[in-house]
Amino acid sequence: MLRFEVFVLGNSSATPVFERHPTAQVVNYNEQLFLIDCGEGTQMQLSRYGIKSNRIDHIFISHLHGDHYLGLVGLLSSMHLVGRKSDLHIYGPAPLEEILAVHFRYSETTIRYPIHFHPTNPHEEELIFESRMLTVRSFPLLHRIPCNGFRFDEAERPATLKAEVVENLGIPKAYYTRLKRGMDYTDPQGAVHRAVDLTIPPPKPRSYAYCSDTRRDSSYLHSIEGADLLYHESTFAHDMIDRAKETFHTTAREAAEIAKEADVSKLLLGHYSARYRNLEPLLAEAKQYFASTELSIEGKWFLV
Amino acid sequence: MLRFEVFVLGNSSATPVFERHPTAQVVNYNEQLFLIDCGEGTQMQLSRYGIKSNRIDHIFISHLHGDHYLGLVGLLSSMHLVGRKSDLHIYGPAPLEEILAVHFRYSETTIRYPIHFHPTNPHEEELIFESRMLTVRSFPLLHRIPCNGFRFDEAERPATLKAEVVENLGIPKAYYTRLKRGMDYTDPQGAVHRAVDLTIPPPKPRSYAYCSDTRRDSSYLHSIEGADLLYHESTFAHDMIDRAKETFHTTAREAAEIAKEADVSKLLLGHYSARYRNLEPLLAEAKQYFASTELSIEGKWFLV
Repeated sequence: MLRFEVFVLGNSSATPVFERHPTAQVVNYNEQLFLIDCGEGTQMQLSRYGIKSNRIDHIFISHLHGDHYLGLVGLLSSMHLVGRKSDLHIYGPAPLEEILAVHFRYSETTIRYPIHFHPTNPHEEELIFESRMLTVRSFPLLHRIPCNGFRFDEAERPATLKAEVVENLGIPKAYYTRLKRGMDYTDPQGAVHRAVDLTIPPPKPRSYAYCSDTRRDSSYLHSIEGADLLYHESTFAHDMIDRAKETFHTTAREAAEIAKEADVSKLLLGHYSARYRNLEPLLAEAKQYFASTELSIEGKWFLV
Repeated sequence: MLRFEVFVLGNSSATPVFERHPTAQVVNYNEQLFLIDCGEGTQMQLSRYGIKSNRIDHIFISHLHGDHYLGLVGLLSSMHLVGRKSDLHIYGPAPLEEILAVHFRYSETTIRYPIHFHPTNPHEEELIFESRMLTVRSFPLLHRIPCNGFRFDEAERPATLKAEVVENLGIPKAYYTRLKRGMDYTDPQGAVHRAVDLTIPPPKPRSYAYCSDTRRDSSYLHSIEGADLLYHESTFAHDMIDRAKETFHTTAREAAEIAKEADVSKLLLGHYSARYRNLEPLLAEAKQYFASTELSIEGKWFLV
C-alpha cells in the first residue's frame, strides 16, 4: 500500500499558545509532499521535524486569515536561500498573489525558482490538481471571509493480475491490460476466462478531506463525503456554541456530527482555541457523537 | 540605577536554523518595553519567555527583509485578539504601512486599538521617540534596501541633593532644584555654597545602539559613538569577507573594529549565518579586535 499520511505542524487557532502553532499540515502521498496552510512559524516547524521544505512542490492555502498563511513569505524566501530551482505551485485565494507581490517588491527579492499561482474558486468545488496517482479538489467552506477546504483523492488503480494462473492458462500477454481493467478473455476454443477470477481487485482508493475554518454547514457535506480521514476544525467545546456561531467556527460535537453525516471513516480535530490548555474534553465530547475521533497533535503522522 | 536591558528573542540571519530565530529584541527601560525588529515567530518567542506583548507600546522595524518584520502582522493580530486597547506606535520604512494595510484588508481585520505609524527616514539621523527618561533616534545603515539602526539614549538626569548637608546649612527649599541643576547658592551673609559640594552627580546616561543589517561603513559611526552597548550584526566570519561585501553584511572582525572605532563599551554579536552551528569561532574572532564582546544568545538579558 502506498504511503498516504498527514503530518500536523500546527493545531492552534488564531493565538498561538501552550507551544501550539498556527495551522499547517503536510500530506505525504507516496513520498510526494503537499503543504496545506502555512501559519507563522511553519518553516521552523518543518525544520524542527526534519521535513525538507524543498520536497514540497504544491502549497494549498485555505484562506487569508493570518494564522493560515503568515508563514508563507518566510518559507518561500528560505526555499530561495537554500537554492531551490524547481517549480512551486501555490493554490489559494486570488488576493494572495498581491500579498506575495507586495512583500517581494519591498524586500527587493527576486525568487530564483518559478512560482505558479493558481487562484482558488470561493464559490464552487473545483479540481485543482491532478496526477496519475492523485487528485486534489478545493471546495467552499462557510467562514467570515472566502475560505476553501481541500480533498485529496487517490486515483482508482487497476487490478493486479494473478500472474502464475494467467501464465498457466497460456493467455497471451496482449490481453493482460484488458484483464486488469475487468474485461474477460475468450480463448481460441471458446472458453471464457473471467477477469474477476484472474485478478486481485485494487485497494479501495483512499481520500483525505481538510476543513480548516468553517461554520457547521450542510453545503460542503457532499465534498467530504466518505473520506477515509476528515480533518475538521473544532475551535470550541459545545458550551461555546454561541461564540462558535458568532466567529464562524465549529464545536467539537458539531465536527463529530458532521463526520457522521458525511460518513467518513475517521475524524481528526484541530484549530483549538487558546482557552483550552487541556484538549481531552474536546476529544471526549466529539467521541460521544463519533467514536472514531482523534486529536491532531503536532509532530505526529496520521494515516489516511 | 534604573533597569536598562536588552532581551534577545532571535539571533539568526535570513534562514532560521539550529533552533535559532530571526531577529527580534526587547529593550526594557525602567519596565517600559520596546520591541526592535519582529522576525517570523516573534509572538511565539515572547510567549515562550513569558514577556507579555501588551506591555510593548513601541515597535521599531529596521528594514523590510522578511527576517526582520514577518512576525509583525501576527503579533498585531494577537494583541487585538487578547483585547488590547492602548495605543501602539510602529516606526519603520514607509512601505510597511502599505504591507500592513494589505494584510488587514484581505483578512477583513479591524484592529481595535489605535496604531500610529511613523515612517523612518532612510537618509538622515532623526529623533523618533522622546520621553522624560529616554530618546530613540533612527539612523541610516548601508544595506541592499533602505535600512535603519536605532539608538536608545537615557536622558541626562539631575544631580541628587546631599539632603542632610543642605538642611543643616538651612538653605531654603526653593533653591533645591537650582542646586540640582548645578547653580551655586549665595546665602544672605554673602557666603557661596557650591552646588558641586552639595550634590551627588547623576549617573552617566547610558545608551544602546542597534545595527541590524549593514555593510561595514564609516557613515554611521557618529550615530553609535560612545554607546554603552552596541549590538552589531556579524553575519559571517572574516574568511567570508567577499560574501559579506556582496550581500551587504558584516564579519565578526569588522563588527569588532567598528566597536573600537566608535569607542563603545561593549559589543554584542548577532544575525548569524546558517553556516555556523557553533558560534564560538565568531566570538573568538571578534575578541581579537575588541575584547569586550559577547554573543547575543536567545532567551538572555544583556545589561546596557
